[in-house]
Amino acid sequence: MSPDRPTLTATPHNVGVDAAVAAARRVVTALLHAGDGSAAAMAEVASRLTAVAEHLEEHAPTRDERLVDMWAGEGVTRHDPVTGPENAVAPPLPLSGLPDGSIQGTVTLGLPYQGPPGCVHGGVSALLLDHTLGVANHWAGDSGMTGTLTLRYHRPTPLFEELTVRARQVSVEGRKIRTTGEILAGDAVCVSAEGLFVNKHLPRPR
Amino acid sequence: MSPDRPTLTATPHNVGVDAAVAAARRVVTALLHAGDGSAAAMAEVASRLTAVAEHLEEHAPTRDERLVDMWAGEGVTRHDPVTGPENAVAPPLPLSGLPDGSIQGTVTLGLPYQGPPGCVHGGVSALLLDHTLGVANHWAGDSGMTGTLTLRYHRPTPLFEELTVRARQVSVEGRKIRTTGEILAGDAVCVSAEGLFVNKHLPRPR
Repeated sequence: MSPDRPTLTATPHNVGVDAAVAAARRVVTALLHAGDGSAAAMAEVASRLTAVAEHLEEHAPTRDERLVDMWAGEGVTRHDPVTGPENAVAPPLPLSGLPDGSIQGTVTLGLPYQGPPGCVHGGVSALLLDHTLGVANHWAGDSGMTGTLTLRYHRPTPLFEELTVRARQVSVEGRKIRTTGEILAGDAVCVSAEGLFVNKHLPRPR
Repeated sequence: MSPDRPTLTATPHNVGVDAAVAAARRVVTALLHAGDGSAAAMAEVASRLTAVAEHLEEHAPTRDERLVDMWAGEGVTRHDPVTGPENAVAPPLPLSGLPDGSIQGTVTLGLPYQGPPGCVHGGVSALLLDHTLGVANHWAGDSGMTGTLTLRYHRPTPLFEELTVRARQVSVEGRKIRTTGEILAGDAVCVSAEGLFVNKHLPRPR
Protein backbone atom coordinates (compact mmCIF):
# COMPACT_ATOMS: atom_id res chain seq x y z
CA MET A 1 0.00 0.00 0.00
CA SER A 2 1.44 3.33 -1.05
CA PRO A 3 0.23 6.62 0.46
CA ASP A 4 -1.32 7.86 -2.79
CA ARG A 5 -2.98 4.49 -3.53
CA PRO A 6 -4.89 3.54 -0.37
CA THR A 7 -6.05 -0.07 -0.18
CA LEU A 8 -9.87 -0.25 -0.24
CA THR A 9 -10.26 -3.98 0.37
CA ALA A 10 -9.36 -6.29 3.24
CA THR A 11 -5.74 -7.44 3.15
CA PRO A 12 -5.39 -11.23 3.53
CA HIS A 13 -3.41 -12.33 6.57
CA ASN A 14 -1.09 -15.31 6.27
CA VAL A 15 -2.52 -16.83 9.45
CA GLY A 16 -5.87 -17.79 10.97
CA VAL A 17 -8.99 -18.19 8.86
CA ASP A 18 -7.42 -16.30 5.93
CA ALA A 19 -4.67 -18.90 5.60
CA ALA A 20 -7.23 -21.72 5.82
CA VAL A 21 -9.38 -20.02 3.15
CA ALA A 22 -6.35 -19.56 0.88
CA ALA A 23 -5.72 -23.31 1.19
CA ALA A 24 -9.42 -24.01 0.49
CA ARG A 25 -9.18 -21.90 -2.68
CA ARG A 26 -6.21 -24.00 -3.75
CA VAL A 27 -8.30 -27.17 -3.17
CA VAL A 28 -11.20 -25.77 -5.24
CA THR A 29 -8.86 -25.03 -8.16
CA ALA A 30 -6.99 -28.33 -7.82
CA LEU A 31 -10.27 -30.30 -7.90
CA LEU A 32 -11.17 -28.62 -11.21
CA HIS A 33 -7.71 -29.32 -12.60
CA ALA A 34 -7.93 -32.94 -11.49
CA GLY A 35 -11.34 -33.72 -12.98
CA ASP A 36 -13.18 -37.00 -12.90
CA GLY A 37 -10.59 -38.97 -14.80
CA SER A 38 -7.94 -38.06 -12.28
CA ALA A 39 -5.63 -40.61 -10.71
CA ALA A 40 -6.19 -38.95 -7.33
CA ALA A 41 -8.16 -41.08 -4.88
CA MET A 42 -11.32 -38.97 -4.75
CA ALA A 43 -13.11 -41.00 -2.06
CA GLU A 44 -10.17 -40.34 0.24
CA VAL A 45 -10.19 -36.62 -0.72
CA ALA A 46 -13.94 -36.39 -0.02
CA SER A 47 -13.45 -38.05 3.34
CA ARG A 48 -10.59 -35.72 4.37
CA LEU A 49 -12.54 -32.61 3.30
CA THR A 50 -15.66 -33.80 5.12
CA ALA A 51 -13.62 -34.25 8.29
CA VAL A 52 -12.36 -30.65 8.00
CA ALA A 53 -15.92 -29.37 7.44
CA GLU A 54 -17.17 -31.29 10.47
CA HIS A 55 -14.39 -29.87 12.66
CA LEU A 56 -15.22 -26.31 11.53
CA GLU A 57 -18.98 -26.79 11.95
CA GLU A 58 -18.52 -28.12 15.50
CA HIS A 59 -16.60 -24.99 16.54
CA ALA A 60 -18.65 -22.37 14.65
CA PRO A 61 -20.90 -19.82 16.34
CA THR A 62 -24.62 -19.83 15.45
CA ARG A 63 -25.55 -18.24 12.11
CA ASP A 64 -27.13 -15.21 13.83
CA GLU A 65 -24.07 -14.67 16.04
CA ARG A 66 -21.84 -14.94 13.00
CA LEU A 67 -23.92 -12.47 10.96
CA VAL A 68 -23.65 -9.87 13.74
CA ASP A 69 -19.92 -10.50 14.02
CA MET A 70 -19.18 -10.31 10.28
CA TRP A 71 -20.96 -6.94 10.00
CA ALA A 72 -19.44 -5.41 13.14
CA GLY A 73 -17.00 -2.51 12.83
CA GLU A 74 -16.77 0.09 10.10
CA GLY A 75 -13.94 -1.27 7.97
CA VAL A 76 -14.10 -3.12 4.66
CA THR A 77 -15.85 -6.47 4.50
CA ARG A 78 -13.72 -9.60 4.87
CA HIS A 79 -16.37 -12.07 3.72
CA ASP A 80 -17.73 -10.91 0.32
CA PRO A 81 -17.47 -13.14 -2.79
CA VAL A 82 -15.19 -10.75 -4.72
CA THR A 83 -12.57 -9.29 -2.38
CA GLY A 84 -13.07 -11.26 0.85
CA PRO A 85 -10.02 -13.03 2.29
CA GLU A 86 -12.44 -15.19 4.35
CA ASN A 87 -14.42 -16.31 1.28
CA ALA A 88 -12.93 -19.04 -0.92
CA VAL A 89 -15.40 -18.13 -3.70
CA ALA A 90 -13.58 -14.76 -4.03
CA PRO A 91 -10.48 -14.78 -6.31
CA PRO A 92 -9.85 -12.40 -4.25
CA LEU A 93 -9.63 -9.04 -6.08
CA PRO A 94 -7.65 -6.32 -4.23
CA LEU A 95 -8.71 -2.74 -5.00
CA SER A 96 -6.89 0.55 -4.44
CA GLY A 97 -7.99 4.17 -4.71
CA LEU A 98 -6.22 6.33 -7.30
CA PRO A 99 -5.50 10.06 -6.95
CA ASP A 100 -8.02 10.89 -9.71
CA GLY A 101 -10.88 9.44 -7.61
CA SER A 102 -11.16 6.17 -9.53
CA ILE A 103 -10.26 2.74 -8.15
CA GLN A 104 -8.36 -0.15 -9.66
CA GLY A 105 -7.11 -3.67 -9.03
CA THR A 106 -5.51 -6.56 -10.86
CA VAL A 107 -6.39 -10.24 -10.73
CA THR A 108 -5.62 -13.41 -12.66
CA LEU A 109 -8.52 -15.87 -12.85
CA GLY A 110 -8.21 -19.64 -13.16
CA LEU A 111 -10.46 -22.59 -13.99
CA PRO A 112 -13.13 -21.95 -11.31
CA TYR A 113 -14.14 -18.79 -13.21
CA GLN A 114 -14.33 -20.26 -16.72
CA GLY A 115 -17.21 -19.60 -19.10
CA PRO A 116 -16.35 -20.14 -22.80
CA PRO A 117 -13.27 -22.33 -23.37
CA GLY A 118 -10.20 -20.65 -21.81
CA CYS A 119 -12.17 -17.47 -21.04
CA VAL A 120 -13.74 -15.82 -18.01
CA HIS A 121 -17.47 -16.51 -17.52
CA GLY A 122 -19.53 -13.45 -18.51
CA GLY A 123 -21.40 -13.70 -15.21
CA VAL A 124 -18.12 -13.70 -13.27
CA SER A 125 -17.14 -10.47 -15.05
CA ALA A 126 -20.55 -9.09 -14.00
CA LEU A 127 -19.89 -10.15 -10.39
CA LEU A 128 -16.46 -8.48 -10.32
CA LEU A 129 -17.75 -5.29 -11.92
CA ASP A 130 -20.87 -4.97 -9.75
CA HIS A 131 -18.70 -5.20 -6.66
CA THR A 132 -15.99 -2.88 -7.98
CA LEU A 133 -18.57 -0.23 -8.90
CA GLY A 134 -19.88 -0.46 -5.33
CA VAL A 135 -16.39 0.01 -3.87
CA ALA A 136 -15.85 2.99 -6.21
CA ASN A 137 -18.99 4.55 -4.71
CA HIS A 138 -17.70 4.02 -1.17
CA TRP A 139 -14.38 5.57 -2.18
CA ALA A 140 -16.20 8.58 -3.71
CA GLY A 141 -18.29 9.05 -0.57
CA ASP A 142 -21.85 8.33 -1.76
CA SER A 143 -22.77 4.66 -1.95
CA GLY A 144 -25.86 2.49 -2.13
CA MET A 145 -27.48 -0.59 -3.55
CA THR A 146 -27.48 -1.58 -7.23
CA GLY A 147 -30.64 -0.45 -9.04
CA THR A 148 -29.67 -1.22 -12.64
CA LEU A 149 -26.48 -2.72 -14.01
CA THR A 150 -25.69 -2.90 -17.73
CA LEU A 151 -22.78 -4.95 -19.01
CA ARG A 152 -21.32 -4.81 -22.50
CA TYR A 153 -19.08 -7.64 -23.64
CA HIS A 154 -16.57 -6.31 -26.19
CA ARG A 155 -14.25 -9.29 -26.53
CA PRO A 156 -13.59 -12.55 -24.67
CA THR A 157 -11.86 -12.04 -21.30
CA PRO A 158 -8.91 -14.43 -21.01
CA LEU A 159 -8.27 -16.80 -18.10
CA PHE A 160 -4.70 -17.19 -16.80
CA GLU A 161 -3.70 -13.59 -17.71
CA GLU A 162 -3.50 -10.54 -15.48
CA LEU A 163 -6.66 -8.47 -15.81
CA THR A 164 -7.21 -4.90 -14.66
CA VAL A 165 -10.56 -4.07 -13.07
CA ARG A 166 -11.33 -0.39 -12.61
CA ALA A 167 -14.30 1.85 -11.82
CA ARG A 168 -15.25 5.43 -11.04
CA GLN A 169 -18.28 7.31 -9.82
CA VAL A 170 -19.62 9.53 -12.61
CA SER A 171 -22.41 11.52 -10.95
CA VAL A 172 -24.67 11.85 -7.92
CA GLU A 173 -28.12 13.39 -8.39
CA GLY A 174 -30.25 13.23 -5.27
CA ARG A 175 -30.26 9.55 -4.28
CA LYS A 176 -29.21 8.36 -7.77
CA ILE A 177 -25.59 7.46 -8.27
CA ARG A 178 -24.06 6.67 -11.69
CA THR A 179 -20.90 4.61 -11.81
CA THR A 180 -18.92 3.01 -14.64
CA GLY A 181 -16.17 0.42 -14.85
CA GLU A 182 -14.22 -1.91 -17.12
CA ILE A 183 -12.25 -5.12 -17.18
CA LEU A 184 -9.14 -4.91 -19.36
CA ALA A 185 -6.65 -7.46 -20.67
CA GLY A 186 -3.56 -5.39 -21.38
CA ASP A 187 -4.91 -2.20 -22.99
CA ALA A 188 -8.01 -3.87 -24.47
CA VAL A 189 -11.39 -3.36 -22.79
CA CYS A 190 -13.07 -6.78 -22.57
CA VAL A 191 -16.19 -5.85 -20.57
CA SER A 192 -17.62 -2.46 -19.61
CA ALA A 193 -20.30 -1.76 -17.04
CA GLU A 194 -22.62 1.08 -16.19
CA GLY A 195 -24.49 1.05 -12.92
CA LEU A 196 -27.28 3.09 -11.43
CA PHE A 197 -27.16 2.86 -7.65
CA VAL A 198 -29.68 4.10 -5.11
CA ASN A 199 -28.36 5.68 -1.93
CA LYS A 200 -29.88 3.36 0.64
CA HIS A 201 -28.46 0.64 2.87
CA LEU A 202 -29.93 -2.38 4.58
CA PRO A 203 -29.56 -2.41 8.37
CA ARG A 204 -26.71 -4.43 9.79
CA PRO A 205 -27.60 -7.45 11.94
CA ARG A 206 -27.36 -6.79 15.71
CA MET B 1 -36.09 -35.83 -13.89
CA SER B 2 -39.60 -36.09 -15.26
CA PRO B 3 -40.24 -36.67 -18.98
CA ASP B 4 -41.85 -33.23 -19.48
CA ARG B 5 -39.13 -31.44 -17.49
CA PRO B 6 -35.79 -32.57 -18.96
CA THR B 7 -32.74 -31.75 -16.87
CA LEU B 8 -30.50 -29.25 -18.70
CA THR B 9 -27.56 -29.25 -16.29
CA ALA B 10 -25.10 -31.90 -15.16
CA THR B 11 -26.42 -34.07 -12.35
CA PRO B 12 -23.98 -34.38 -9.43
CA HIS B 13 -22.81 -37.93 -8.73
CA ASN B 14 -22.35 -39.02 -5.13
CA VAL B 15 -18.93 -40.45 -5.94
CA GLY B 16 -15.63 -39.39 -7.51
CA VAL B 17 -14.74 -35.76 -8.03
CA ASP B 18 -18.36 -34.63 -7.54
CA ALA B 19 -18.40 -35.99 -3.98
CA ALA B 20 -15.03 -34.38 -3.24
CA VAL B 21 -16.30 -31.05 -4.64
CA ALA B 22 -19.48 -31.28 -2.55
CA ALA B 23 -17.26 -31.72 0.52
CA ALA B 24 -15.10 -28.76 -0.60
CA ARG B 25 -18.24 -26.61 -0.89
CA ARG B 26 -19.11 -27.59 2.68
CA VAL B 27 -15.60 -26.52 3.78
CA VAL B 28 -15.95 -23.14 2.00
CA THR B 29 -19.26 -22.45 3.76
CA ALA B 30 -18.02 -23.74 7.13
CA LEU B 31 -14.95 -21.46 6.96
CA LEU B 32 -17.24 -18.44 6.46
CA HIS B 33 -19.45 -19.55 9.34
CA ALA B 34 -16.43 -20.07 11.57
CA GLY B 35 -14.79 -16.70 10.97
CA ASP B 36 -11.61 -15.41 12.48
CA GLY B 37 -12.79 -15.49 16.07
CA SER B 38 -13.54 -19.19 15.77
CA ALA B 39 -12.39 -21.71 18.33
CA ALA B 40 -11.37 -24.03 15.49
CA ALA B 41 -7.63 -24.50 15.17
CA MET B 42 -7.13 -22.70 11.85
CA ALA B 43 -3.43 -23.48 11.44
CA GLU B 44 -4.33 -27.17 11.58
CA VAL B 45 -7.19 -26.64 9.11
CA ALA B 46 -4.88 -24.78 6.71
CA SER B 47 -2.33 -27.58 6.95
CA ARG B 48 -4.90 -30.32 6.27
CA LEU B 49 -6.35 -28.43 3.27
CA THR B 50 -2.88 -27.74 1.86
CA ALA B 51 -2.10 -31.47 2.07
CA VAL B 52 -5.28 -32.24 0.08
CA ALA B 53 -4.39 -29.59 -2.53
CA GLU B 54 -0.87 -31.01 -2.88
CA HIS B 55 -2.22 -34.54 -3.36
CA LEU B 56 -4.61 -33.34 -6.08
CA GLU B 57 -1.98 -31.23 -7.83
CA GLU B 58 0.46 -34.16 -7.92
CA HIS B 59 -2.09 -36.35 -9.71
CA ALA B 60 -3.59 -33.73 -12.06
CA PRO B 61 -3.10 -33.71 -15.84
CA THR B 62 -1.47 -30.65 -17.41
CA ARG B 63 -3.68 -27.59 -17.84
CA ASP B 64 -3.85 -28.05 -21.63
CA GLU B 65 -4.77 -31.73 -21.29
CA ARG B 66 -7.43 -30.84 -18.77
CA LEU B 67 -8.90 -28.08 -20.96
CA VAL B 68 -9.28 -30.51 -23.86
CA ASP B 69 -10.83 -33.10 -21.55
CA MET B 70 -13.31 -30.74 -19.88
CA TRP B 71 -14.63 -29.55 -23.28
CA ALA B 72 -14.84 -33.01 -24.85
CA GLY B 73 -18.23 -34.50 -25.67
CA GLU B 74 -21.45 -32.71 -26.51
CA GLY B 75 -23.28 -32.83 -23.20
CA VAL B 76 -23.73 -30.12 -20.58
CA THR B 77 -20.68 -28.67 -18.89
CA ARG B 78 -19.67 -30.16 -15.52
CA HIS B 79 -17.19 -27.43 -14.58
CA ASP B 80 -18.94 -24.02 -14.87
CA PRO B 81 -19.25 -21.69 -11.85
CA VAL B 82 -23.08 -21.81 -11.75
CA THR B 83 -24.28 -25.37 -12.40
CA GLY B 84 -21.05 -27.40 -12.39
CA PRO B 85 -20.87 -30.37 -10.00
CA GLU B 86 -17.06 -30.26 -10.39
CA ASN B 87 -16.81 -26.58 -9.40
CA ALA B 88 -17.05 -25.71 -5.70
CA VAL B 89 -17.69 -22.05 -6.60
CA ALA B 90 -21.05 -23.16 -8.11
CA PRO B 91 -23.96 -23.41 -5.61
CA PRO B 92 -24.79 -25.51 -7.88
CA LEU B 93 -28.01 -24.44 -9.64
CA PRO B 94 -29.91 -27.27 -11.39
CA LEU B 95 -32.02 -26.21 -14.39
CA SER B 96 -34.87 -27.99 -16.18
CA GLY B 97 -36.72 -27.28 -19.40
CA LEU B 98 -40.45 -26.57 -19.15
CA PRO B 99 -43.08 -27.51 -21.75
CA ASP B 100 -43.61 -23.82 -22.65
CA GLY B 101 -39.99 -23.51 -23.82
CA SER B 102 -38.73 -21.67 -20.74
CA ILE B 103 -36.31 -23.12 -18.19
CA GLN B 104 -36.30 -23.02 -14.40
CA GLY B 105 -34.43 -24.12 -11.31
CA THR B 106 -34.42 -23.59 -7.56
CA VAL B 107 -31.50 -22.91 -5.26
CA THR B 108 -30.89 -21.75 -1.70
CA LEU B 109 -27.78 -19.60 -1.26
CA GLY B 110 -25.68 -19.35 1.91
CA LEU B 111 -22.96 -17.10 3.30
CA PRO B 112 -20.47 -17.48 0.40
CA TYR B 113 -22.91 -15.55 -1.82
CA GLN B 114 -23.70 -12.66 0.55
CA GLY B 115 -23.74 -9.01 -0.55
CA PRO B 116 -25.80 -6.73 1.72
CA PRO B 117 -26.42 -8.16 5.23
CA GLY B 118 -28.42 -11.40 4.93
CA CYS B 119 -28.95 -10.91 1.18
CA VAL B 120 -27.55 -12.30 -2.05
CA HIS B 121 -24.76 -10.23 -3.65
CA GLY B 122 -26.08 -8.34 -6.68
CA GLY B 123 -23.17 -9.64 -8.73
CA VAL B 124 -23.98 -13.23 -7.76
CA SER B 125 -27.54 -12.69 -9.04
CA ALA B 126 -25.97 -11.38 -12.27
CA LEU B 127 -23.78 -14.50 -12.49
CA LEU B 128 -26.74 -16.85 -12.00
CA LEU B 129 -28.90 -14.97 -14.51
CA ASP B 130 -26.22 -14.65 -17.20
CA HIS B 131 -25.68 -18.40 -17.08
CA THR B 132 -29.39 -19.25 -16.94
CA LEU B 133 -30.12 -17.04 -19.96
CA GLY B 134 -27.37 -18.91 -21.81
CA VAL B 135 -28.88 -22.30 -20.91
CA ALA B 136 -32.31 -21.02 -22.02
CA ASN B 137 -30.78 -20.24 -25.40
CA HIS B 138 -29.32 -23.74 -25.68
CA TRP B 139 -32.71 -25.19 -24.78
CA ALA B 140 -34.41 -23.02 -27.43
CA GLY B 141 -31.91 -24.11 -30.09
CA ASP B 142 -30.06 -20.87 -30.92
CA SER B 143 -27.29 -19.93 -28.52
CA GLY B 144 -24.24 -17.70 -28.39
CA MET B 145 -22.10 -15.38 -26.34
CA THR B 146 -23.39 -12.53 -24.18
CA GLY B 147 -23.27 -9.16 -25.99
CA THR B 148 -25.20 -7.00 -23.54
CA LEU B 149 -26.74 -7.92 -20.21
CA THR B 150 -28.99 -5.57 -18.24
CA LEU B 151 -29.99 -6.34 -14.68
CA ARG B 152 -32.71 -4.62 -12.68
CA TYR B 153 -32.74 -5.04 -8.93
CA HIS B 154 -36.34 -4.77 -7.68
CA ARG B 155 -35.89 -5.84 -4.04
CA PRO B 156 -33.20 -7.50 -1.93
CA THR B 157 -32.75 -11.21 -2.70
CA PRO B 158 -32.72 -13.21 0.54
CA LEU B 159 -30.05 -15.70 1.57
CA PHE B 160 -31.13 -18.97 3.26
CA GLU B 161 -34.48 -19.12 1.36
CA GLU B 162 -35.39 -21.12 -1.71
CA LEU B 163 -35.11 -18.95 -4.83
CA THR B 164 -36.50 -19.67 -8.27
CA VAL B 165 -34.31 -18.78 -11.25
CA ARG B 166 -36.02 -18.85 -14.64
CA ALA B 167 -35.39 -17.67 -18.21
CA ARG B 168 -36.75 -17.84 -21.71
CA GLN B 169 -35.60 -16.95 -25.20
CA VAL B 170 -37.73 -14.08 -26.53
CA SER B 171 -36.58 -13.67 -30.14
CA VAL B 172 -33.95 -14.55 -32.73
CA GLU B 173 -33.24 -12.06 -35.52
CA GLY B 174 -30.31 -13.03 -37.69
CA ARG B 175 -27.43 -13.59 -35.26
CA LYS B 176 -29.06 -11.55 -32.48
CA ILE B 177 -30.80 -13.45 -29.71
CA ARG B 178 -32.91 -11.76 -27.01
CA THR B 179 -33.44 -13.59 -23.74
CA THR B 180 -34.99 -12.61 -20.41
CA GLY B 181 -34.99 -14.08 -16.92
CA GLU B 182 -35.76 -13.46 -13.26
CA ILE B 183 -34.84 -14.51 -9.77
CA LEU B 184 -37.85 -14.85 -7.48
CA ALA B 185 -38.30 -15.32 -3.74
CA GLY B 186 -41.74 -16.85 -3.43
CA ASP B 187 -43.85 -14.95 -5.96
CA ALA B 188 -41.81 -11.73 -5.74
CA VAL B 189 -39.37 -10.86 -8.52
CA CYS B 190 -36.10 -9.77 -6.86
CA VAL B 191 -33.92 -9.34 -9.97
CA SER B 192 -34.79 -9.35 -13.66
CA ALA B 193 -32.40 -9.63 -16.58
CA GLU B 194 -32.48 -8.93 -20.29
CA GLY B 195 -29.71 -10.24 -22.48
CA LEU B 196 -28.67 -9.69 -26.06
CA PHE B 197 -26.64 -12.65 -27.26
CA VAL B 198 -24.69 -13.04 -30.47
CA ASN B 199 -24.79 -16.40 -32.20
CA LYS B 200 -21.10 -17.25 -32.19
CA HIS B 201 -19.00 -19.72 -30.24
CA LEU B 202 -15.34 -19.91 -29.35
CA PRO B 203 -13.55 -23.04 -30.59
CA ARG B 204 -13.11 -25.85 -28.10
CA PRO B 205 -9.55 -26.74 -27.07
CA ARG B 206 -8.13 -29.79 -28.89
